[in-house]
Amino acid sequence: MSKQELEVIGQDAACCPGVSAAPLDDERAAELAKVFKALGDPVRLRLLSLIASRGEGGEVCVCELTPAFDLSQPTISHHLKLLRQAGLIDCERRGTWVYYWVLPSALDRLALFLRTPTAAEAVA
Amino acid sequence: MSKQELEVIGQDAACCPGVSAAPLDDERAAELAKVFKALGDPVRLRLLSLIASRGEGGEVCVCELTPAFDLSQPTISHHLKLLRQAGLIDCERRGTWVYYWVLPSALDRLALFLRTPTAAEAVA
Repeated sequence: MSKQELEVIGQDAACCPGVSAAPLDDERAAELAKVFKALGDPVRLRLLSLIASRGEGGEVCVCELTPAFDLSQPTISHHLKLLRQAGLIDCERRGTWVYYWVLPSALDRLALFLRTPTAAEAVA
Repeated sequence: MSKQELEVIGQDAACCPGVSAAPLDDERAAELAKVFKALGDPVRLRLLSLIASRGEGGEVCVCELTPAFDLSQPTISHHLKLLRQAGLIDCERRGTWVYYWVLPSALDRLALFLRTPTAAEAVA
């Protein structure tokens, strides 16, 4: 990974204290709750995982996501919209289809928030 | 940290692939969604943070938690119950009061699930 990427991750750790560091203020609690709420649904978690498992820089056509679920296209699109509004994924329309990819920095920020000091020491 | 603790964290990483590793199956998606749903509320996030910020092995009396919120005791107790059902905290009654503490392994497990390969390399 590049030095720049390392610095970004370092900044995240510095800017955003973890759950154990200090009591959360109202604003940050509201912001984080919105993202966790987006993750609090099995279909959205499966969608996120399907997109994320394409690897860094990988993307998935919505036409590949829908057949993996026993749900209508509008329902899948609604779940994808909630993940996008939470800042976990982004998308682009190209011709007929919309393509989705994850935003790794959003996932890593949540991971840093949840990680306890014990685990942080273990991987340091 | 002890060798045993390191092994536990290592086992978690081995047993539970991250969001980017492979598409989630239904069972694990349902299990994880339940925990993320518990985190998807600002009051519960603030409660968790208040408890977690007591440090490892620290605990908080419910009598200290309630005054931090403009909510009734039963409402706070309900939110604490949801955090407990999600396996994020545990509690014990001693005399008049109930005492709460976090379960760090549950938080670390979620953090490992969310962490992308890029961040994993950065802290390795």
